[in-house]
Amino acid sequence: MDKIRYGIIGIGAQGSSYARFLTGKPEIPGFELPKGPEHATLGAICDIDEDKKAKYTEIYKDIPFYTDWKELVLSGNVDAVITTVPHYLHTTIAIFCLEHGVPVLVEKPAGVYAKAVREMNECALKHPDVAFGIMFNQRTNVLYKKIREIINSGEMGQIRRSNWIINTWYRPDVYYRQSSWRATWEGEGGGVLVNQAPHQLDLWQWICGIPTKVFAKCRFGFGRNIDVEDDVTIMAEFENGAVGTFITCTHDACGTDRLEIDLDGGKIVVEDSKKATIYRLKEFEQDYNKNLKPEDLFKIMSGNGAGGMYETEEFENTDGWGKQHITVLENFACHILEGTPLLAPGTDGINGVNLCNATLLSAWLSKEVDNPVDEDLYYSELQKRIEEEKNNKAGR
Amino acid sequence: MDKIRYGIIGIGAQGSSYARFLTGKPEIPGFELPKGPEHATLGAICDIDEDKKAKYTEIYKDIPFYTDWKELVLSGNVDAVITTVPHYLHTTIAIFCLEHGVPVLVEKPAGVYAKAVREMNECALKHPDVAFGIMFNQRTNVLYKKIREIINSGEMGQIRRSNWIINTWYRPDVYYRQSSWRATWEGEGGGVLVNQAPHQLDLWQWICGIPTKVFAKCRFGFGRNIDVEDDVTIMAEFENGAVGTFITCTHDACGTDRLEIDLDGGKIVVEDSKKATIYRLKEFEQDYNKNLKPEDLFKIMSGNGAGGMYETEEFENTDGWGKQHITVLENFACHILEGTPLLAPGTDGINGVNLCNATLLSAWLSKEVDNPVDEDLYYSELQKRIEEEKNNKAGR
Repeated sequence: MDKIRYGIIGIGAQGSSYARFLTGKPEIPGFELPKGPEHATLGAICDIDEDKKAKYTEIYKDIPFYTDWKELVLSGNVDAVITTVPHYLHTTIAIFCLEHGVPVLVEKPAGVYAKAVREMNECALKHPDVAFGIMFNQRTNVLYKKIREIINSGEMGQIRRSNWIINTWYRPDVYYRQSSWRATWEGEGGGVLVNQAPHQLDLWQWICGIPTKVFAKCRFGFGRNIDVEDDVTIMAEFENGAVGTFITCTHDACGTDRLEIDLDGGKIVVEDSKKATIYRLKEFEQDYNKNLKPEDLFKIMSGNGAGGMYETEEFENTDGWGKQHITVLENFACHILEGTPLLAPGTDGINGVNLCNATLLSAWLSKEVDNPVDEDLYYSELQKRIEEEKNNKAGR
Repeated sequence: MDKIRYGIIGIGAQGSSYARFLTGKPEIPGFELPKGPEHATLGAICDIDEDKKAKYTEIYKDIPFYTDWKELVLSGNVDAVITTVPHYLHTTIAIFCLEHGVPVLVEKPAGVYAKAVREMNECALKHPDVAFGIMFNQRTNVLYKKIREIINSGEMGQIRRSNWIINTWYRPDVYYRQSSWRATWEGEGGGVLVNQAPHQLDLWQWICGIPTKVFAKCRFGFGRNIDVEDDVTIMAEFENGAVGTFITCTHDACGTDRLEIDLDGGKIVVEDSKKATIYRLKEFEQDYNKNLKPEDLFKIMSGNGAGGMYETEEFENTDGWGKQHITVLENFACHILEGTPLLAPGTDGINGVNLCNATLLSAWLSKEVDNPVDEDLYYSELQKRIEEEKNNKAGR
């Protein structure tokens, strides 16, 4: 076996992109595809939608199409499965795959509530021989990889503060009306936190660590005809006492994406996920603090900061569209074929779900909560929102 | 009378700058002074420090020098007073001036705790004929003035979110050791919130309104041998439901100053208090939301935001050092002489003090608080910190 045959469960916007990457066949004439993964191909497709069946059996004539995802998993036509389905189903499908020895690459978010994701992870621990990954494609962004390496190396010391504003996903009402499950408590389990921001919720924790406490304010259905959160402000505390903020919304038509991390040894700023600037202090701040003399004060206090104390380095990410997803598809294939380490082990998905759950619970209860939160409490509060949503819809 | 004679109470770093502006006499040879206020001059100086008396009676031979500030106020040598003294004294001196009919320009912050500032403001209301201003010199920054005008005009609609990171004041331990009252609960009543950030606490509220709720985390004596807060993260809620964050610390040697305001009609970003960028949507976001069609979605969702939806305008502030303070000194003089409207009425000082008090109280109690807070509760909590500080000092 030199190529992994992927089975795609759910052939919507994301699933159809993967099909194109894996086959090299653009269904949009004239659309130029990036080079697909070398060690993977398309094995089968599944969807419950009859229109999609008609469409995709026409485009991919030789590829088996299933309407029952369990049939696809057990068909023998696939060496691995990708779950491009509504979020609630990720854990259900992953557990079935793991129990039947079929490698599974889950889409983000790993799930909607921590309880289900924990059960999936426990199942994965029982089946360590079955490959289990998650599509955290943004971990392949060279900027975030490099920043993580710098921070993990310790060369810039401990993190003191981190702030991310990530609003570069404008979603008007027409977007939310695309399908009935979208941006609902029942169908999707949340709004911007479960649909748009999971990558950043993952990257933030991948780079800066897992918060221990969360206070958050969410606006639900702000300017949109939905009941879920579409405007979020998080304040989180980390184990070493560092404080971070994370801001995201879907109504900002001008879009900001700016991550700033303040460390003992300087500062890192990433703008638009495209450009990173490292401000590297020549000594750790603690050492400057210890050694500065009264006569240095005027120099430092006049003007902004102290230019002479640091050097800057810039680097860029120029990855085109599709590159990141293809890298994860290839990595997961090579992991199965050759044991290449996973870019994103499937079990890592729980961190983003935990933080999402803590954020919503804090906003619902109007108080600071521990992270991870009590998963039963979260689940029962979520059920209340599902009930309320039904009543709201009935009243519309 | 064509010039106001200012009496400076407290001739430290700030007071001596004002003396230079008012006399045009630099005590530092070769130092080029900006042009001073046209309608003001130096009437008298007061300080309790004998060394300063020796120094300044030598420099300003014709200017009366007092060691008792009440004597200066009542001397007949001054038409107005400036309070460049430790913050606790601002309200005491201002009340005395108001009661004796002497115009008073208080330094920022207006005071340390809301109770005293409220009493000062009540006194001012009883003496509407006595001019009462506050040195919010940064309100003269053309960027913030223009942004306030834009927002107040309503042309960009309501504010949805505001975020300010203001860390451009690196303060090492040697700074804190300059005088015994600095950065103490007893002497100064706080740290970065009462000393470095009052201008931004004022500007934020001057531009974005007064928060109704505050949740905050503070680090006390982080990396410094002090008991007060030197690292602050605020999450505030405003009357219209908008959420804002405000971040400030004194240990960031690389310094960030970035204000972002998101509105119905676009976005405003100010960097380093020097450059503002206005992203003006061609229609309000609400209208885009209403009118966008499914076929517009792909264009909007691909790439960052939607370039065609807005136009940008940039403007800069190029004010040199001293310009802002001189503008306030001149404005207050013209207010007395000709009734020119005040740039910053003295009573406005309470907003910054309230927000500072709410921030500290929230951090102390680890919960969200209303703004303004219960002033007696704040005062009693402050007294506890003063006691603890005494014990900590005794143990050092």
